[in-house]
Amino acid sequence: MGTLGDPADAIDGARIAARLDDLWTIARAPGGGADRPAYSEAEAAGMRLVAAWAHEAGLPVALDPHGNLWALPAGDGPVVTSGSHVDTVPGGGRYDGALGTVLALEAAIALRGRAGVLVCAAEEAPRFGAGTVGSRLMVGTLAEAALEDLRDAAGVTAATARAGFLAALDDVPRLDGPPPLDRIAAHVEVHIEPRHELRGRGARLGVVEQIAAPHRHELTVDGEAGHAGEVAMADRHDALAAVAEIVLALEAAAREQARRHPATVATVGRLEVEPGAISVIPARVRAALEVRGIDAGAIAAVEAALDDAGAGVAERRGVTVTRRLLRGGDPIALDPALAARAFAAAERRGLAPARTYSGAGHDAGHLAAHVPAALLFVPLAAGQSHTPHEAADDADVLAAGRVLVDVLGGN
Amino acid sequence: MGTLGDPADAIDGARIAARLDDLWTIARAPGGGADRPAYSEAEAAGMRLVAAWAHEAGLPVALDPHGNLWALPAGDGPVVTSGSHVDTVPGGGRYDGALGTVLALEAAIALRGRAGVLVCAAEEAPRFGAGTVGSRLMVGTLAEAALEDLRDAAGVTAATARAGFLAALDDVPRLDGPPPLDRIAAHVEVHIEPRHELRGRGARLGVVEQIAAPHRHELTVDGEAGHAGEVAMADRHDALAAVAEIVLALEAAAREQARRHPATVATVGRLEVEPGAISVIPARVRAALEVRGIDAGAIAAVEAALDDAGAGVAERRGVTVTRRLLRGGDPIALDPALAARAFAAAERRGLAPARTYSGAGHDAGHLAAHVPAALLFVPLAAGQSHTPHEAADDADVLAAGRVLVDVLGGN
Repeated sequence: MGTLGDPADAIDGARIAARLDDLWTIARAPGGGADRPAYSEAEAAGMRLVAAWAHEAGLPVALDPHGNLWALPAGDGPVVTSGSHVDTVPGGGRYDGALGTVLALEAAIALRGRAGVLVCAAEEAPRFGAGTVGSRLMVGTLAEAALEDLRDAAGVTAATARAGFLAALDDVPRLDGPPPLDRIAAHVEVHIEPRHELRGRGARLGVVEQIAAPHRHELTVDGEAGHAGEVAMADRHDALAAVAEIVLALEAAAREQARRHPATVATVGRLEVEPGAISVIPARVRAALEVRGIDAGAIAAVEAALDDAGAGVAERRGVTVTRRLLRGGDPIALDPALAARAFAAAERRGLAPARTYSGAGHDAGHLAAHVPAALLFVPLAAGQSHTPHEAADDADVLAAGRVLVDVLGGN
Repeated sequence: MGTLGDPADAIDGARIAARLDDLWTIARAPGGGADRPAYSEAEAAGMRLVAAWAHEAGLPVALDPHGNLWALPAGDGPVVTSGSHVDTVPGGGRYDGALGTVLALEAAIALRGRAGVLVCAAEEAPRFGAGTVGSRLMVGTLAEAALEDLRDAAGVTAATARAGFLAALDDVPRLDGPPPLDRIAAHVEVHIEPRHELRGRGARLGVVEQIAAPHRHELTVDGEAGHAGEVAMADRHDALAAVAEIVLALEAAAREQARRHPATVATVGRLEVEPGAISVIPARVRAALEVRGIDAGAIAAVEAALDDAGAGVAERRGVTVTRRLLRGGDPIALDPALAARAFAAAERRGLAPARTYSGAGHDAGHLAAHVPAALLFVPLAAGQSHTPHEAADDADVLAAGRVLVDVLGGN
C-alpha cells in the first residue's frame, strides 16, 4: 500500500462524490433529505444505478427473489464481496447505505475480477417496522410468510411492495439458482457510524466486532378502570401509574448495566393507554420495549430487573403484568480474523482505528452466520445519523475505501 | 310526614319500577346495559317518555334550544323543580339519571301544581368527551361555538347531533322565551351514588354539599428522538421516562393531599407517545390529566407538586415540560339551607343521612350558580356506577322520593 501499484490507488474521490449525489437526488423528503423507502420505486431507481455502475465495472448483475442485487465476477469460484443498501429512512442522509454501496463499486474496480458487489434490499426499518428485510429473507431468518404481516401506514404489505419493486426492475436479469453465498470468501460492509463516537476517540475508522441483539418485548398491565373523580386514590389500580414505575425501573437497570457494558440500552418506544379518556382511570396499558446490548449477561440482568419490577408493581398495586418476548437472540460476533485484518490495514494507513460495536442491525450481521463478514464505520463528521445533516469527511471516506480494498485484496 | 295526608304518600313504588323499566328497555348496549348516548335517538326516546309522564301529571312541557325538557306548572310564579337526565354512558345502568328523572315525576304528582320537572340533555360525557352539555349551555358556561369542536368517534359534531335530537322531538312544543330559571325557587336532583360510600357509613341517603372541580391540564414533554440501539443511556433525553416520573409525582402528591382531603384525586387518563416506534427513543409525550377535589387548597397543592416535578425533570433530564390548563374553576358549593332541609327531612324519616361530596359533575351543580340547588345520593346497593350492574334498593329509592317531596314541599 501507499506504493506504486497499490490497487487502492484506483479509488476515485470525484467518482464517489458524483455517485453519492446520483443516489441523493433520486427522491427527496418534504423536509429535505433522501426519501427512498424499502421496496419503493425510489429504492428500485437506486438499484438501477448500482446495476449500471456494476456493468461499467465489468460485473454481470442479477436480482435474487428478495430484490437483493448480486454483481459477482463471472464463474463459480470464490470471490470477495462488499456492499450495503440504497434504501433510506424518511428524510435520511447522503451516506447511510449509499456510502457502503458506492465504495463497494470502487473496490470492485480496484480489485477487478476478484471482488463483487452485494447490495441488499429493504434494509431500513420504518416503512414496515422491520429492518434488514432483504438480507434476512436471503439467509432464512425472516420467513417469507412474515411479509404478509408487515404493512406500511397505507396498509400495503411488504409482499406487495416487493412485487412492485421487482416489477420496476423487470429488465434486470434474475439470479439463476439460489443466492451464491457459498462463493463468498469474505464480505465487508462499510457504513457511516450511527453515533458520534469515533472522532471523540481520535479514530478515523471503526472496526465493528459485535452487533447488538435487540430483545423486543410486549408488556401489558391490566388494572381497573374507574371514574377519575370518584375513585379515591387509595382504592385505585391505575395501569398507567403501574407502568410508569416499570418504565423507570427498566431505565435504572439499563443505566446500571451500562456502567460496565456501555452498549446496554433499554427503551420503551410505544405505549398505548386504554380507554385513554381524561376522566377515566387507565384500565390497561400496552407497551412495546426493547433491551439491546452486546453482552448477553447484561441484557439478561436488565430483563430480570424488568420482571422484578413487574412482579413488585403487580403485588403492591393489585394489577396484572404480563410480558411477552417478541424477538430474542444473541449478540452477533463478526469474523475476528477479518476484523483483525481491517484493523491492521487501517493502522498501516495511519487511521488510528478503534474497535467498536453496532447497536443497530446491519446486513453484514445477518450474512455473518454464513460467510466471514466485517463491518467498518466511517466517522460521523457532523449531523446525526438518519437525518439529512449526517456527514462524513471526504478524506475519511477515501481512507475507508482504501482499507476496504486492502481487506478484500487480502492485505 | 308519616301521617295521614302526607303528600309523600303519593309516591308509588310500582310506578317508579315500571318507569325505570321503560327507560331501561329503550336501547341496549351489546354487553347489556342501557345505551342512550348524548343527543341520540335513544335519548330523544327517553325525553319523549318524560314528556308523556309530565303530561299525565298535568304539566305542560317544552324543550329549550339545547334539548333540555321543561315541565313547569302553568303561569309565571315561583316553582320548585327536580330532575336529572335520561342519557347514559355506553353500557350504563338502570338508575343513573333515570332514577332522578322518575322521582322528579313522582314529586310533581305528590306536589301537584307546585313542583315542576327539569330534565337536562346530554349529561353524560363519553360520546363527545364532555359532560353536562345541556345544563352548561343553558347557564352559559359552555359556549354554543364549542359544540362544533366536540366530535364523537364517527366525526359527528355535538351541534349536528343536537339538531338531530331536536328534529326527532319536533312534535314537542318549544319553550316560548328564555329558560325560566328565575321561576325556580329550589331545584333538587336525586342521583344514585357514584361510588360505594353511603352503606359503609350506615346511611340510606347522602346529602351532597360540594361538587368537585375538575382541573384539566395538557402536559407536553419534549425530549430527543434517537435510535433505541445507538444512543447510550447517559446521552438520552427520553420524553417517556421523563413523563413516567411526573405521573408518579402527581400520584404521590394526590395521595398526600388525600390524607386530609379524601376527595382529592389526580389522574393521567391519556398519553400519546411520539414517534411511537419500538426502536426509537420517545421524542415527545403528550398527556391529558386532571386534578379534582372539593378543597381548592389541596388541588392547588397537587398542581404545585406537578409543576415542581416538571421543573425537576426538565432540569435533570434536559427535556422541556409545558403544562396548559384546559379547564379550571372552583369546587361548587350547593345551597347550604336546602342541604340542611334535606338532611333534617332524611333524619326525620330515619335514613341516618350522611353529608358527602360528588367527584363527578352534575346538572344541579351548574344550576347552583343561578338557583338554590341540592343533590341527593341514593346508596349504590350493588355493582359499580356506569355499569349495567349498578343497583339501588327499592326501599332506599322510595325513601329518597319521600325526602324529595319533603324538601320541595317545604318540610
